[in-house]
Amino acid sequence: MTADPRLSVNQATIKYADLGTALRVTADAGVSSIGLWREPVNEVGLDTAIRMLADSGLRFSSHCRGGFFTVPEGPARRASIDDNRRAIDETAALAAAGAEGSAAVLVLVVGGLPEGSRDLVGARSGVHDALAELAPHARDAGVTLAIEPLHPMYASDRAVVSTLGQALDLAADFDAAVVGAAVDTFHIWWDPDVLSQIARAGKEGRIATYQVCDWKTPLPADVLLSRHYPGDGVIDFGPLTRAVLDAGYEGDIEVEIFNADIWAADPAEVVARTAASFGAAVSPHLG
Amino acid sequence: MTADPRLSVNQATIKYADLGTALRVTADAGVSSIGLWREPVNEVGLDTAIRMLADSGLRFSSHCRGGFFTVPEGPARRASIDDNRRAIDETAALAAAGAEGSAAVLVLVVGGLPEGSRDLVGARSGVHDALAELAPHARDAGVTLAIEPLHPMYASDRAVVSTLGQALDLAADFDAAVVGAAVDTFHIWWDPDVLSQIARAGKEGRIATYQVCDWKTPLPADVLLSRHYPGDGVIDFGPLTRAVLDAGYEGDIEVEIFNADIWAADPAEVVARTAASFGAAVSPHLG
Repeated sequence: MTADPRLSVNQATIKYADLGTALRVTADAGVSSIGLWREPVNEVGLDTAIRMLADSGLRFSSHCRGGFFTVPEGPARRASIDDNRRAIDETAALAAAGAEGSAAVLVLVVGGLPEGSRDLVGARSGVHDALAELAPHARDAGVTLAIEPLHPMYASDRAVVSTLGQALDLAADFDAAVVGAAVDTFHIWWDPDVLSQIARAGKEGRIATYQVCDWKTPLPADVLLSRHYPGDGVIDFGPLTRAVLDAGYEGDIEVEIFNADIWAADPAEVVARTAASFGAAVSPHLG
Repeated sequence: MTADPRLSVNQATIKYADLGTALRVTADAGVSSIGLWREPVNEVGLDTAIRMLADSGLRFSSHCRGGFFTVPEGPARRASIDDNRRAIDETAALAAAGAEGSAAVLVLVVGGLPEGSRDLVGARSGVHDALAELAPHARDAGVTLAIEPLHPMYASDRAVVSTLGQALDLAADFDAAVVGAAVDTFHIWWDPDVLSQIARAGKEGRIATYQVCDWKTPLPADVLLSRHYPGDGVIDFGPLTRAVLDAGYEGDIEVEIFNADIWAADPAEVVARTAASFGAAVSPHLG
């Protein structure tokens, strides 16, 4: 089997597959790259994960995920910063173990409002402080932190960064090699400024990863699981993908889907379907 | 009973009350203003509604709702434009029948992507075209069309206008007396640019109505019904309300809540609770 050479399967798309299964079904489907998640990596241990990734021959396109920076100063925040340092180290090690063209990118979901808080501005400033604290470690490790703006429906409980423009404003104080942004179609397709902000992200050298999946209504009861195969919803992948390419992005393109039905399906079938939907909805725009 | 003199109960908050009940429970609670919906008005007929409103002694703060402009040219679009003309006429007549200080404001929910379409840019341009077609009629009737940016989670199926800035950009080609924007905390609280865009809206004279209700997670299965009493969620009404006031808005402030539990409750109790929650969460910021 073959798949688009720029496609990467993000492991969240086959959430219930362990690392070994995820690597195997991805490679078997002719996909050449994978984005990993920390939990399945840590389940086998980093050293084993590194060997397994190297043996798979796959590129490593990103590590998911760091972040959750919005808790107020105290033990919980210290634990979060320490955990992000470990995530940075994991990212560097996995990128070194992946095939040529792997990317040392750690995706950050920055966190929502702290429990009981209504202080959105304060929470955002907590994200900036955490980036400042982590940036030297990331630079030393050669890892790019990718701030992921999440759809505004997650602003209160998952990410107080909701637009690409806002992510770029946050990143602006840091080297582009150290702090960039994740461009995920699902989260930003609705933004009237999306194309100009993608162009800006390119100009500023900050597109750390490009992720695709689709938006469709009605949303399921758990809105976290409302992501679909490219082409199954209303997102127009042409303009977004061309904008990302025109902005100079040359890396892998991940499909990351949270969807209970897809998670319940056989992972090999899911990867095959991922490759097919990517081929139909995204590949035609890769010129 | 007394309630904040600037409070207006939007009829959607007591969705299952007919017009007579809505007017009665609102006035009985000491609330001095009401925002009406077209369906209950048309249920009794406009002439009767006008008499009932006048008899109630209440101000009329807005009419909900026009819009749904994104269907492609053809009979459905013509029917939508005609219906919006009728909505404009109803708005003018009701504003004239309400107590002194009534506002001739028609709230517009602009519509989502047409069935089968992924053309967000085209849908937005259809909104602009509809405004251009309706503006002369609105001007003649003395009615302000209030473009309501809806939360981005409704971008595909209800409103392709998602931010206040985008609403103001759309309005910019028209007289401020004819096309303004609805500022609704629920829809725009998450926007990193919300305060600057409220200031801009004021400077441009475009705040046609200010509506408040709260955001809380988890969202219910039907995300349309995820609105809460002010104070029951995470929105910080202080900065938003002060920004609206600083921007020069002097009109009524509506509480508009879509919530199955609130709809199932006794309308008199809902209005009392609305007045109390407004008094606690919003009134302190009205200086």
